[in-house]
Amino acid sequence: MRILVINGANLGLLGKREPKFYGTISLKEIQQRLKKKFPRVRFRFVQTNSEGTIVDHLNKAFDGGVDGVVINPGAYAHYSYAIRDAIAALSIPVVEAHISNVHAREEWRRHSVIAPVCAGVVGGFGWMTYELAVRFLVEREK
Amino acid sequence: MRILVINGANLGLLGKREPKFYGTISLKEIQQRLKKKFPRVRFRFVQTNSEGTIVDHLNKAFDGGVDGVVINPGAYAHYSYAIRDAIAALSIPVVEAHISNVHAREEWRRHSVIAPVCAGVVGGFGWMTYELAVRFLVEREK
Amino acid sequence: MRILVINGANLGLLGKREPKFYGTISLKEIQQRLKKKFPRVRFRFVQTNSEGTIVDHLNKAFDGGVDGVVINPGAYAHYSYAIRDAIAALSIPVVEAHISNVHAREEWRRHSVIAPVCAGVVGGFGWMTYELAVRFLVEREK
Amino acid sequence: MRILVINGANLGLLGKREPKFYGTISLKEIQQRLKKKFPRVRFRFVQTNSEGTIVDHLNKAFDGGVDGVVINPGAYAHYSYAIRDAIAALSIPVVEAHISNVHAREEWRRHSVIAPVCAGVVGGFGWMTYELAVRFLVEREK
Amino acid sequence: MRILVINGANLGLLGKREPKFYGTISLKEIQQRLKKKFPRVRFRFVQTNSEGTIVDHLNKAFDGGVDGVVINPGAYAHYSYAIRDAIAALSIPVVEAHISNVHAREEWRRHSVIAPVCAGVVGGFGWMTYELAVRFLVEREK
Amino acid sequence: MRILVINGANLGLLGKREPKFYGTISLKEIQQRLKKKFPRVRFRFVQTNSEGTIVDHLNKAFDGGVDGVVINPGAYAHYSYAIRDAIAALSIPVVEAHISNVHAREEWRRHSVIAPVCAGVVGGFGWMTYELAVRFLVEREK
Amino acid sequence: MRILVINGANLGLLGKREPKFYGTISLKEIQQRLKKKFPRVRFRFVQTNSEGTIVDHLNKAFDGGVDGVVINPGAYAHYSYAIRDAIAALSIPVVEAHISNVHAREEWRRHSVIAPVCAGVVGGFGWMTYELAVRFLVEREK
Amino acid sequence: MRILVINGANLGLLGKREPKFYGTISLKEIQQRLKKKFPRVRFRFVQTNSEGTIVDHLNKAFDGGVDGVVINPGAYAHYSYAIRDAIAALSIPVVEAHISNVHAREEWRRHSVIAPVCAGVVGGFGWMTYELAVRFLVEREK
Amino acid sequence: MRILVINGANLGLLGKREPKFYGTISLKEIQQRLKKKFPRVRFRFVQTNSEGTIVDHLNKAFDGGVDGVVINPGAYAHYSYAIRDAIAALSIPVVEAHISNVHAREEWRRHSVIAPVCAGVVGGFGWMTYELAVRFLVEREK
Amino acid sequence: MRILVINGANLGLLGKREPKFYGTISLKEIQQRLKKKFPRVRFRFVQTNSEGTIVDHLNKAFDGGVDGVVINPGAYAHYSYAIRDAIAALSIPVVEAHISNVHAREEWRRHSVIAPVCAGVVGGFGWMTYELAVRFLVEREK
Amino acid sequence: MRILVINGANLGLLGKREPKFYGTISLKEIQQRLKKKFPRVRFRFVQTNSEGTIVDHLNKAFDGGVDGVVINPGAYAHYSYAIRDAIAALSIPVVEAHISNVHAREEWRRHSVIAPVCAGVVGGFGWMTYELAVRFLVEREK
Amino acid sequence: MRILVINGANLGLLGKREPKFYGTISLKEIQQRLKKKFPRVRFRFVQTNSEGTIVDHLNKAFDGGVDGVVINPGAYAHYSYAIRDAIAALSIPVVEAHISNVHAREEWRRHSVIAPVCAGVVGGFGWMTYELAVRFLVEREK
Repeated sequence: MRILVINGANLGLLGKREPKFYGTISLKEIQQRLKKKFPRVRFRFVQTNSEGTIVDHLNKAFDGGVDGVVINPGAYAHYSYAIRDAIAALSIPVVEAHISNVHAREEWRRHSVIAPVCAGVVGGFGWMTYELAVRFLVEREK
Repeated sequence: MRILVINGANLGLLGKREPKFYGTISLKEIQQRLKKKFPRVRFRFVQTNSEGTIVDHLNKAFDGGVDGVVINPGAYAHYSYAIRDAIAALSIPVVEAHISNVHAREEWRRHSVIAPVCAGVVGGFGWMTYELAVRFLVEREK
Repeated sequence: MRILVINGANLGLLGKREPKFYGTISLKEIQQRLKKKFPRVRFRFVQTNSEGTIVDHLNKAFDGGVDGVVINPGAYAHYSYAIRDAIAALSIPVVEAHISNVHAREEWRRHSVIAPVCAGVVGGFGWMTYELAVRFLVEREK
Repeated sequence: MRILVINGANLGLLGKREPKFYGTISLKEIQQRLKKKFPRVRFRFVQTNSEGTIVDHLNKAFDGGVDGVVINPGAYAHYSYAIRDAIAALSIPVVEAHISNVHAREEWRRHSVIAPVCAGVVGGFGWMTYELAVRFLVEREK
Repeated sequence: MRILVINGANLGLLGKREPKFYGTISLKEIQQRLKKKFPRVRFRFVQTNSEGTIVDHLNKAFDGGVDGVVINPGAYAHYSYAIRDAIAALSIPVVEAHISNVHAREEWRRHSVIAPVCAGVVGGFGWMTYELAVRFLVEREK
Repeated sequence: MRILVINGANLGLLGKREPKFYGTISLKEIQQRLKKKFPRVRFRFVQTNSEGTIVDHLNKAFDGGVDGVVINPGAYAHYSYAIRDAIAALSIPVVEAHISNVHAREEWRRHSVIAPVCAGVVGGFGWMTYELAVRFLVEREK
Repeated sequence: MRILVINGANLGLLGKREPKFYGTISLKEIQQRLKKKFPRVRFRFVQTNSEGTIVDHLNKAFDGGVDGVVINPGAYAHYSYAIRDAIAALSIPVVEAHISNVHAREEWRRHSVIAPVCAGVVGGFGWMTYELAVRFLVEREK
Repeated sequence: MRILVINGANLGLLGKREPKFYGTISLKEIQQRLKKKFPRVRFRFVQTNSEGTIVDHLNKAFDGGVDGVVINPGAYAHYSYAIRDAIAALSIPVVEAHISNVHAREEWRRHSVIAPVCAGVVGGFGWMTYELAVRFLVEREK
Repeated sequence: MRILVINGANLGLLGKREPKFYGTISLKEIQQRLKKKFPRVRFRFVQTNSEGTIVDHLNKAFDGGVDGVVINPGAYAHYSYAIRDAIAALSIPVVEAHISNVHAREEWRRHSVIAPVCAGVVGGFGWMTYELAVRFLVEREK
Repeated sequence: MRILVINGANLGLLGKREPKFYGTISLKEIQQRLKKKFPRVRFRFVQTNSEGTIVDHLNKAFDGGVDGVVINPGAYAHYSYAIRDAIAALSIPVVEAHISNVHAREEWRRHSVIAPVCAGVVGGFGWMTYELAVRFLVEREK
Repeated sequence: MRILVINGANLGLLGKREPKFYGTISLKEIQQRLKKKFPRVRFRFVQTNSEGTIVDHLNKAFDGGVDGVVINPGAYAHYSYAIRDAIAALSIPVVEAHISNVHAREEWRRHSVIAPVCAGVVGGFGWMTYELAVRFLVEREK
Repeated sequence: MRILVINGANLGLLGKREPKFYGTISLKEIQQRLKKKFPRVRFRFVQTNSEGTIVDHLNKAFDGGVDGVVINPGAYAHYSYAIRDAIAALSIPVVEAHISNVHAREEWRRHSVIAPVCAGVVGGFGWMTYELAVRFLVEREK
């Protein structure tokens, strides 16, 4: 199974930035944990601060080569209708993932414009958020 | 580990009601799957249509005997500030779980008044929603 | 034909409470008038102040034994998404009924969260509201 | 007893237009059924697409000759404060009637500006909507 | 004088739950203090997490036996129109009481749907809130 | 000087309808008073319940023959953008007039969509409203 | 007849300030014109930038000595509930007056919190606004 | 091909009214240009200030004789749900047309209640708006 | 104990103004009753219609000499952020008091901008409101 | 004449993505049709998923070399104030174009933040949208 | 150059009040620092808690004697349309200044009703806020 | 001291674009003036139309090498939560700067999503805005 994991704005700072919300584990370590937990999955990891580049990656997935997507768009989740349209165009399952519990923070973080076109949403479980999202994609295949 | 799984309004109809949203698996089957997946967890399962009874169960958990809660309040998630207060009073982790992707349905289902006081939120993964929620409670213990 | 008539919060006070809005006829008298007007209908009458109990009754109707429902939820009409979900789960026709003209009173009484999942709405006709609601259920059968 | 039945915008298309919402019975047939069901009532039937003409008819009723009004204003129900004022000026009872369940359709159809000045509201029962409305006017006379 | 004191959702946890907001005195101790402060008042104390049961108690008060009500509905204050209707039906004075200053907390706690039908509102004075509420009921009698 | 006085929806009922708001003087009497008060003004009086007819009259005024307009659109004031556009097209002064103080009644009466394109607004002075409006038109000519 | 004319915030600048909206006539000249037009009226003229002082003057009028009030509160019209309460307490007629057409300017100028408790509103007629307001007070006396 | 071109409120003033927004060409000239540009189309031109008459014309089109409609409702576009329902009832394509760019003007002009039920919208191109609208109807036929 | 009692806009009219809401007792009488009920308290009584003067008094309390404040700001409660800031600057307890039940009147009276920075709120108990507010300040000292 | 045609987010998928809304013609084919229809126009075609790149292209147009712009920003139309500012800075005409009728889809698609600074808007005509937009730019040149 | 520096509500407490937001420097010290930093400027310093007095000072500036104004209205910034009108009447530049970053505090502090009529806004720089505001007024003169 | 100056969308057009709002000085000239005014500061100047690139630069500043940031995000200030998060992650001071007074223009320009996480805000002073922002960063260091 091939899974694309997209991390958006400011997630390159993971492990360094606001540990109260985002913990102390870096994106690299999360990726290694995922590979170890799911040795049969072929992962492609992408991190970019650019909305357009996220749309590019999702558009490419349209032509195949990917069986599922885990996306943590960072703040773009709350206003990027461009990413929403890119997800809506796909027929493979996409899971929205957030490291912190966005509902326990500022009001604007509570509304996601991409959630309605995703298969499901996971949020608030720190690095485990990614594990839970991947597990869903893997087990539903069976 | 002891986990309390609360199912709220109309979830006794699971497997019979609106299968497009809720699937064809009954609550009983879900409970059996959970027991089988997590043989070391001691589960307590509660289903009630009454908001007050849900608050009763959460209040009881205040005095110990439970290490984590998975709650699918059904429609109460969207307006029961009483349940919210009951969760906020607890110091053990509570996970909000929804079978369907509430963000892809009516507008009022997109807002949960209990999410801000939960540890995290999982939604949209059918019966697997419960598995993912329990897995988080189990693994964070380690 | 079997019709379930559910009366919700505060409707046990009918005939005594705010006669300007609700008239002077008690719930008991209304039930007798209905039985007399529709001798062939087998009625089941329920009055409860508890939202959860209303959901219980609607869930039970899911398994048959009832051909139509008349529901006057009282104030629950304006915020009980739990009752809404319970009605939406049913395939038999449900009619929402209000004794007073809710549109001519406080603003919050003008919005019903259950109306969108009912077959129709009748309101403002005093005790005759129930007669009109039942008449619809009876005549559509023919 | 003399009852004025007013049908507003687009209701001349009844039976032909969007049968999913409005059924297949024409306005003419409805009028015949009403006459047959209520042989003692003297009906006056009006259908017009013009808001001003509806106000004209209601103003004329001010000077007597009518004992009750059933009005289905069509879309005017949702914004015609002119019709509202015309109804408010009357002392005879006026019943608002809608063929389809306006609460189960677009958001704007859920708000009626004339409901607060009517005696009651009936909606969602197809052609029977008119029968239920007339029945109320007839029986309250007794 | 006979006074009914109703405590709603989660107030059984008083003294244990979030002492920052609710203090360290239990409901039992508050009741004893009230009895001591007002030896001539005959109190009836009720605590329940169920909205329906609160309505039941208020409905019963309709038939007499109570000269005034102090109600702390907990979170129900903010959305229970059923409790509001039950209070509106009474002719004896009802005082809304809150232990914490609800205006200094979350936005949703600032709006009470029952306040408009109460005689008055007291909030923010810890356990003394109840004393002040009772004192009003007692002294106005004179 | 030539002045067009337009009265819109329901104003033909003046003197008969809701005297608390509209007084007991008929439109005819008002017109006679105006003629007497302003003997040098040549008045044209129009009363119609039809929005379109009001627009017709305003459009005709575009081609001259009128030096000023007093318009009491009735309820159309609150939503008729068609009348607003018709007024905006004119270069002669138009005064909006209301018999009752619309600000002291329902919320929706407080907002006029035509006010922004009028020269001024007069309201709340009973039949004198018309006199004040005409006076402005007359004196500014000097 | 004794009339109190209150001018509020920034109206001392009249004739100098933003002539596009307020004209070139000073407050003094307006007062002289009023005296000349209405020789029988005993005017008291007040101009103050202070909300509290306006309330003082209105409170004093409570004890008699004034038969009517014309008030142009300036910007206070849009948020001073203190002035509103002071007007509501009076039983003599109060007329709200604005020199410019507040409806044709910024959105916030369209809403007056004092209009609902005034006898009427006049606006947009330059200095004549005051004349029209006084005329109403004078003629209604007859 | 037979095309019905409906022009609503105030469009009879075209060429004379607010040339900054609407240009200097009259409706008559536009109609002649259309006939010349599309010699094979059989046009029916209607201009009326009455909402009800527009609904009449659209209702008549229901019974055939027309292959497409171009409608510039004027200000009715922004609030006439009656026209909206009349268009929704038709199965032939209807194009909404505006001479000026409604989006560059007042806020309320930016919202059209009929756009959702039209095939498309053209706006801002002066008299050419009509040509573009007709061209669409003609070319899609091919 | 030294208590400052501030009464704001229009409260000098107490006993004369709108007795339905405010009763027939004058401010002077209330002050005498308070002195009699609490003989050990040294009261300072202030009544002013000026927002700025209220802020002056609160600012002075910053420098000591006062142990608690009871404030009934009148209408200023609903918009005076200046008074709010003045209260927030103090470390002694401040109680907001209203004679009438503001929740049972106009919508704008239901929102207090100063409540979030007060210790507590009392409202609706007529002149007893002041007694209850003072009692809290006195007894908490013990 | 030189025309810049900008296609924004997800429009590279045209012809493949959601054909119900966007048809089956690819962007390439549309470009060829445009070239063929308007042989005298020199087109520059741009497609990018990046908001910043769209702004770059519009900024470049500031320095000449382009006589008009057709822009279909995709979802950016609904929130990109950066693109809006870039268009507002230009003095050549810009036409906003949408393939589907955005008014007939989700609510958020009905609001364009760039429309107010465009010359006009075309939407809902499939690939012909581009033709109509170009035709306007070409003919206005004449 | 002559600069008027106005400090409004509660700013007399500077240095003593809520040092987290407002620092520990008193208004007096700030004034001395300004004089020292800008020895050529003739300052006039005003501090008042009264909205009306602020308007008085601004009205006086209308008649000359001042070349620029720095105003920190305190909480009045958020609702005083009277101050706004007074500033709008001036032709000399006015700078709005806030000691704390109002955007990082309560929601209501984020909206200033006077900002739209000021030359510019400075906020969040502690006592330096005043220096920056004065510097702008001084340097633009050159 | 090392200061990063970021200019966002459309600011490369400075000096050419809409001089009424933005003046006639180019970005290059501003940068030279800053260097000259603050010879001891080591500036890094960045201008980009891409939101993602702005986030990149702010993320890089996380790892040191910069002592303060001046950011004029252009229109991104009003909706880029991605930039907000990037600023919130930094511990060095960031100043938001706007050339024009955003409060005196369109409504949407009045709200900045990044202001709450900045140290302070300067706006409306033309090119001097940058000087004031830098001066704050320089002087607070002392």
